[in-house]
Amino acid sequence: MQHIKNIPAKDLVPGITGYYAHGTDMTFGLVEIKKNSNLPAHQHVHEQITYVLEGQLDMLIGDKECSLTPGMYYVIPSNTLHSAIAVTDCKVIDVFSPVREEYKSGFTQNEYRGIER
Amino acid sequence: MQHIKNIPAKDLVPGITGYYAHGTDMTFGLVEIKKNSNLPAHQHVHEQITYVLEGQLDMLIGDKECSLTPGMYYVIPSNTLHSAIAVTDCKVIDVFSPVREEYKSGFTQNEYRGIER
Repeated sequence: MQHIKNIPAKDLVPGITGYYAHGTDMTFGLVEIKKNSNLPAHQHVHEQITYVLEGQLDMLIGDKECSLTPGMYYVIPSNTLHSAIAVTDCKVIDVFSPVREEYKSGFTQNEYRGIER
Repeated sequence: MQHIKNIPAKDLVPGITGYYAHGTDMTFGLVEIKKNSNLPAHQHVHEQITYVLEGQLDMLIGDKECSLTPGMYYVIPSNTLHSAIAVTDCKVIDVFSPVREEYKSGFTQNEYRGIER
């Protein structure tokens, strides 16, 4: 038990900072996103569920555009290309299964340099 | 994509209502708990991560007592007995892996009648 912000922050890309807690089967993240920040298109084997706490996050998930506001969620299947742009400052919950092992240690922003689509 | 409150509510016990979204590997729940409501001790094979959005939720997890306030989380391992009482009205995120298949359909409150400990 601890406050999630006691976990060392991960700066995914400029303006997008995550705090990630890990179990055996899942990773739970609180993600803070500055207005106009952009998470380039990427994909991963992990299933992801994104839930918006605050703000407006516009996402492109596969070929589907969606605009998520507080209380809205999206289940992003394994290996599905997705990207996001923050229309406002946002707070978001991102959960993943299996665990995002690479989030347990430091990583550079290079892994989010984006995938052309 | 939808608002989580568009999902039919599950009344776990009197005063505790959940809205559960399911992926392939995870279940994501928003749970609203009225002050003084009590979730009796129970356990399940699913790993659970509980994160408090609002209020104070006192939990007994295994033999550990903890008082969770906004921003705090707890990773509850598989098959670990846990119970909760809401000191105030609470909003909580509960995520589970694997999927809580039994939450996909209606269920009675009887499954939370509690386990003696």
